[in-house]
Amino acid sequence: MPHSPEEKKKVLARIRRIRGQCEGLERALDAGADCAPVLQQIAAIRGAVNGLMSEVLESHLREQFGQAAHCDDDRAARVAEMTGLIRSYLK
Amino acid sequence: MPHSPEEKKKVLARIRRIRGQCEGLERALDAGADCAPVLQQIAAIRGAVNGLMSEVLESHLREQFGQAAHCDDDRAARVAEMTGLIRSYLK
Amino acid sequence: MPHSPEEKKKVLARIRRIRGQCEGLERALDAGADCAPVLQQIAAIRGAVNGLMSEVLESHLREQFGQAAHCDDDRAARVAEMTGLIRSYLK
Amino acid sequence: MPHSPEEKKKVLARIRRIRGQCEGLERALDAGADCAPVLQQIAAIRGAVNGLMSEVLESHLREQFGQAAHCDDDRAARVAEMTGLIRSYLK
Repeated sequence: MPHSPEEKKKVLARIRRIRGQCEGLERALDAGADCAPVLQQIAAIRGAVNGLMSEVLESHLREQFGQAAHCDDDRAARVAEMTGLIRSYLK
Repeated sequence: MPHSPEEKKKVLARIRRIRGQCEGLERALDAGADCAPVLQQIAAIRGAVNGLMSEVLESHLREQFGQAAHCDDDRAARVAEMTGLIRSYLK
Repeated sequence: MPHSPEEKKKVLARIRRIRGQCEGLERALDAGADCAPVLQQIAAIRGAVNGLMSEVLESHLREQFGQAAHCDDDRAARVAEMTGLIRSYLK
Repeated sequence: MPHSPEEKKKVLARIRRIRGQCEGLERALDAGADCAPVLQQIAAIRGAVNGLMSEVLESHLREQFGQAAHCDDDRAARVAEMTGLIRSYLK
């Protein structure tokens, strides 16, 4: 998950960007950066991680509900799984 | 929204509980409570507000995807609205 | 906490505003508001609760570090308490 | 910032751990992991980033308030800077 090559590509690009932000932060700390810009970089990473989580949830929702379910039980199971994920990760 | 009486009742009960927590916090502050328990009460309110937001999103998802869509366009519109809500409020 | 009348007044005003927002949300739900504006109101409450938590922490910091400590032990104890509060509530 | 070698070491260790978590997540996605464990890994990264932000703020507080200020103006400036940082990053 995500299954489609396009969704997977978008998610992987986000992760690589976060890794790059971590490397930039490591360099800044090694160079003795001040507290305020360091916190700004960490806040940017936090925002990017939230964006990644949202992207994965959105992508899962598109895959689970983008096509008609095969039957009522299948639909109910998908709704139950998706509400559980929202409950777990919205905080 | 939410439309069903049961969903609405659950959401209203959560809001009333949050209002009660705010009243308790006001009383604690008026009585000169210490910082640590005050912060604990605020953290409990924060948790309850996140729980309320999740409940509303879950309830909306159940209402939008609990029955088969009338047509592909309808389904696509519901998926687009729901992913937009997740993107806006997951942070 | 907070001890000074001005700090206490600011914090109480924030709590009352949050209570008012909860009452507005309750009315909106009772009137059958749509999901999107309901979520917007909840997000505003969430922001106000975070602002309240920050106000209490800032006020505590001003009271703990606004005057010189009586001795090194007193200063160390205040630093330890304040870092503990930051660790507990920054999330 | 942070200036002392011990504080710097702790912060750098946290950043490297987060980078490692990102690499693990990348591998999991490449291997076609399911949505639920992927979200769990992202939530763990989010927790680690919050822990890093808290560590940097705590370390800054120890450095700013661990010794007596040189004068009242100096103390007031440190208090103002620290409350500004709490206000910006507590959310």
